[in-house]
Amino acid sequence: MSRIAAFRVDGATSWGVVEGDRLFPVGGRAGAPGSVEELLDTPDLSVWLRSRAATSLDVGTVHLLPPIRPRQDLIALGLNYRDHLDESAARTQQFTPPRQPILFSKAASSVIGPEDEISFDRSVTAEVDWEVELAVIIGRPGRDIEPADALKHVFGYTIANDVSARDLQFLEGKQWYRGKSLDTFCPLGPWIVTVDELGQARGLQVALRVNGQTKQSSTTDHLIFGVEDIIASTSAGRTLGPGDVILTGTPPGVGFTRVPPEYLHDADVVEAEIEGIGVLRNRVRETRSRAARS
Amino acid sequence: MSRIAAFRVDGATSWGVVEGDRLFPVGGRAGAPGSVEELLDTPDLSVWLRSRAATSLDVGTVHLLPPIRPRQDLIALGLNYRDHLDESAARTQQFTPPRQPILFSKAASSVIGPEDEISFDRSVTAEVDWEVELAVIIGRPGRDIEPADALKHVFGYTIANDVSARDLQFLEGKQWYRGKSLDTFCPLGPWIVTVDELGQARGLQVALRVNGQTKQSSTTDHLIFGVEDIIASTSAGRTLGPGDVILTGTPPGVGFTRVPPEYLHDADVVEAEIEGIGVLRNRVRETRSRAARS
Repeated sequence: MSRIAAFRVDGATSWGVVEGDRLFPVGGRAGAPGSVEELLDTPDLSVWLRSRAATSLDVGTVHLLPPIRPRQDLIALGLNYRDHLDESAARTQQFTPPRQPILFSKAASSVIGPEDEISFDRSVTAEVDWEVELAVIIGRPGRDIEPADALKHVFGYTIANDVSARDLQFLEGKQWYRGKSLDTFCPLGPWIVTVDELGQARGLQVALRVNGQTKQSSTTDHLIFGVEDIIASTSAGRTLGPGDVILTGTPPGVGFTRVPPEYLHDADVVEAEIEGIGVLRNRVRETRSRAARS
Repeated sequence: MSRIAAFRVDGATSWGVVEGDRLFPVGGRAGAPGSVEELLDTPDLSVWLRSRAATSLDVGTVHLLPPIRPRQDLIALGLNYRDHLDESAARTQQFTPPRQPILFSKAASSVIGPEDEISFDRSVTAEVDWEVELAVIIGRPGRDIEPADALKHVFGYTIANDVSARDLQFLEGKQWYRGKSLDTFCPLGPWIVTVDELGQARGLQVALRVNGQTKQSSTTDHLIFGVEDIIASTSAGRTLGPGDVILTGTPPGVGFTRVPPEYLHDADVVEAEIEGIGVLRNRVRETRSRAARS
């Protein structure tokens, strides 16, 4: 088992292995892959995950980066927890569990890390919502993958916050992509836990808090489609590659379904937590750059 | 003005400038950017576009590649020609012109070049349709771009065929991404025409033929949102980068709206043509890999 974090130190980016509260740098060592993305293309990657430098850093003092930059595609599932399906039905018009995973995507440019802020301009969106999600990181390429083989293609898991501008998501056409793809709208982290530790990632508590108050609380047992079925369905007729990231859907408790609706505001702190992985914490910042210009 | 093509010769990939029926290789020359993607990051790129090697190739005998591999995101517009909006309304439920461009995305892994086949497995989809589209290639990064500044961010244009599996596109949830993202479902080419030649790309004839029979015929004057407005809207709150590609929507005449519906079959030849750019021709191939396995 390994926890893999990307970080910045002295202006350079690197990566390493986390054990307890220590981070053992690997990226700068002779012959080592320079980034997590390069690690995924390394045939003998387990050698680098097992090796330990003599020196380590206090993980609490390190500036963590997104543990992965999606190679190309940041795929996401809609309505993959039964209770979230029900709470969203009025706006999604989807009343019964889908027979296949509902796939959409987020722009890869929306990814930020655990130390970054979720920022938005109120002239672009006034309905910014949260969604904690288990994120699957593909390690081995494949197409038409059978469910029984799916875990061989998984490198590991991390936590995602599928931040969503609801006013843009439900515009005419009802294509969710625009509202999900604004800059900073995909926090990932704090690190990757490799698949050998979490397997299918069943039975994990999933929670999200805003300013310490619990908004979402569920477990991955309530996923309509589990990780293996998601990979099989997503790869039907379509090649998944190392570094592709798949977000597996969010449990109930998002803001837009509340009465009255709740959205994120300046200085809010959002904590997304998944058992066995950790806590992904991001502060919210409202900007006025566009409004000031026009 | 320049036409820029990527090609393969003797097992290596390169790129060059097309003039008439000659292709002048640039990629292999000393100091030159090795690919079109690298060219976009080159400050003095016009030097490389103006330079001419002493030797040239017959463009008709060169194996052309996709002129650009989308850096990250392959963005697309839905329902951006008035007549296509009307013919699609029964399935899209969008009856009036949208107030903002309807954005979705295609997986970048779906891109193929002018010499490749559109291939699909009938166990994955049985409703493969065509959509000729003007494709905009972003050259300079930007966010919150004003319409008046938009063309400064455009590197050039090429032709796209936004191949669409209609049975997957209109599944529950009605997110178009899955049906638009199968492998080989985004032919691009045959080359890039730089923005200085086409400007806003208004008044260009756009056509698509299947086995020589015209199915789509329109002009870019019928775009509901033109290139400048598309870039302004897409970049609201979201950074566009060099190598991002935006497909601007398709005119009427697609297969699924015909009575009876028409779809692509094995050995069909699809030609997408845009005035001032050229013809993008791809053969269709049906495969049976999945069916044979299960």
